[in-house]
Amino acid sequence: MNFPTKLVEEAVNEISRLPGIGKKTAMRLALHLLKADESVTVDLASALVNLRTKTRWCRNCHHLSETEVCSICSGMRRDKGTICVVEDSRDVIAIEETSQYQGLYHVLGGIISPMAGVGPEELKVESLVERASSSEVREVIMAISPTMEGDTTVFYLSKKLRDCSVKISSIARGVPLGGELEYADALTLGRSILTRTEYQ
Amino acid sequence: MNFPTKLVEEAVNEISRLPGIGKKTAMRLALHLLKADESVTVDLASALVNLRTKTRWCRNCHHLSETEVCSICSGMRRDKGTICVVEDSRDVIAIEETSQYQGLYHVLGGIISPMAGVGPEELKVESLVERASSSEVREVIMAISPTMEGDTTVFYLSKKLRDCSVKISSIARGVPLGGELEYADALTLGRSILTRTEYQ
Repeated sequence: MNFPTKLVEEAVNEISRLPGIGKKTAMRLALHLLKADESVTVDLASALVNLRTKTRWCRNCHHLSETEVCSICSGMRRDKGTICVVEDSRDVIAIEETSQYQGLYHVLGGIISPMAGVGPEELKVESLVERASSSEVREVIMAISPTMEGDTTVFYLSKKLRDCSVKISSIARGVPLGGELEYADALTLGRSILTRTEYQ
Repeated sequence: MNFPTKLVEEAVNEISRLPGIGKKTAMRLALHLLKADESVTVDLASALVNLRTKTRWCRNCHHLSETEVCSICSGMRRDKGTICVVEDSRDVIAIEETSQYQGLYHVLGGIISPMAGVGPEELKVESLVERASSSEVREVIMAISPTMEGDTTVFYLSKKLRDCSVKISSIARGVPLGGELEYADALTLGRSILTRTEYQ
């Protein structure tokens, strides 16, 4: 791409380092900022720098936090006996939105992916084992994406947690609510028959 | 969306003000920045602020420029007799990449769109008429997107330029090179038959 000015080139290069944003989209965003009021760019830039330099992570569950221990871990109404293991903070937010879960979380910070060079040592596995070893904890729920990397991670974690006296479970996998059966993929549909639940 | 911290909320709100980026994508980008090295965020923020505060626009053609007159307008090998009218600087970059055009440009800064509240007075129309009135200019090429707004803009401009003694042309519209005829939409295909070119 031929850039009209050095400033544009630098901005487009920086923007296109973000995941899922290519040079053309970056150029579109740069031109949008140029057309918009100067405060839009200044506010965006300072929000990003503030986020990166001032954000803290919960000492217990590694979720985003404003304090040393996050509001979920220190919540009075939370069930301290259940830990839901997720890949990153986005998943905590998604599960919190359902209002169906009252336990605690554990944010791994990724999943095992040899392709992306992420091994178990990059993840918060040790602190999970430590937490699960506490007598207070009864159950560890794996809420990991149903992909090959996700399944590998769940397998690894369940082996690591074998010596802790906790029940290990996984979120249900099957046809999504509101989905049409005929459009469900064969793997999902097949699994949903194998792991059918009794009608109550 | 329930945000874990105020900093995340502010960053996500600012990022999702960009065109084509919703709250979920913004959250993904924010978490990416949090995981990456601090320099990534700092470099991005400063590139954006530099872009917005230091960028200049060419006095003649309103394209992005490092100097008062852009490198295209001041280019020695450029044909000063042809002006190609485009919507924004992205189009200049796209046409320059083809290496098929040696004339000058005129960046309108948008197209007439009553729905978006953009009228002719928001666009660089007066300066185009002024440039086209120069005896040096022989032809004005309309390189505006073939949409309803684009056609309206071309119609408006051609009326405005009627008193200038310049030839007004438009980039060819038809089936794209490499495209399959059967997949071309009916409007494009119909137009391509009406405006067929003689085989040489």
